[in-house]
Amino acid sequence: MRIPILKLHNCLLISIQWELDDQTALQFQEDLLNRIHETGANGVVIDLTSVDMIDSFIAKVLGDVISMSKLMGAQVVLTGIQPAVAITLVELGIQLDEVFTALDLEKGLEKLQQELGE
Amino acid sequence: MRIPILKLHNCLLISIQWELDDQTALQFQEDLLNRIHETGANGVVIDLTSVDMIDSFIAKVLGDVISMSKLMGAQVVLTGIQPAVAITLVELGIQLDEVFTALDLEKGLEKLQQELGE
Repeated sequence: MRIPILKLHNCLLISIQWELDDQTALQFQEDLLNRIHETGANGVVIDLTSVDMIDSFIAKVLGDVISMSKLMGAQVVLTGIQPAVAITLVELGIQLDEVFTALDLEKGLEKLQQELGE
Repeated sequence: MRIPILKLHNCLLISIQWELDDQTALQFQEDLLNRIHETGANGVVIDLTSVDMIDSFIAKVLGDVISMSKLMGAQVVLTGIQPAVAITLVELGIQLDEVFTALDLEKGLEKLQQELGE
């Protein structure tokens, strides 16, 4: 099962609404990078509102996909990070220094538009 | 597996990116109506760009969910309907008279905002 990726103007929107297994996470990584390449999107919003907890593998894939997206020229905003997810990310030392975060999808998109100067 | 439903301002966005089985379609119907109730959304965009074909059951569920959303006060826009899907919908006599359609997600959202007078 693949995670749907929506294109809205120059941004891609992804809402992760279930626990990811390893295979789905890797498929998502590949799909997202392909969609950035296809669409020329320069912004990505990943909404984690419905994710209650993540394990170390998923956290690493998430960190990786953010770095990879940046390399391809797309700025990533993570939205709706729940307390348990924030704890996991920090405790695992996942490097999210350069990633923007926002409370929800709307605010994430606003932040991205500001950041991209539009 | 559930279809993610994104909330953006007063609209819900859904992108269906794989063939639906009957169970998923019914789950989607229930989830969408619940989200309309929870969020008070008055617009819904269902993007079918990635759907190559649909069967009669899914077509009926789709027609039903549009009628149900209307009853709850939300206007539905279908976007990205492919030729084979359009053929199926018409040949099955699914009533989509009152539904708005648009080419893609952006145009669907624009249409919805116009329609809702915003």
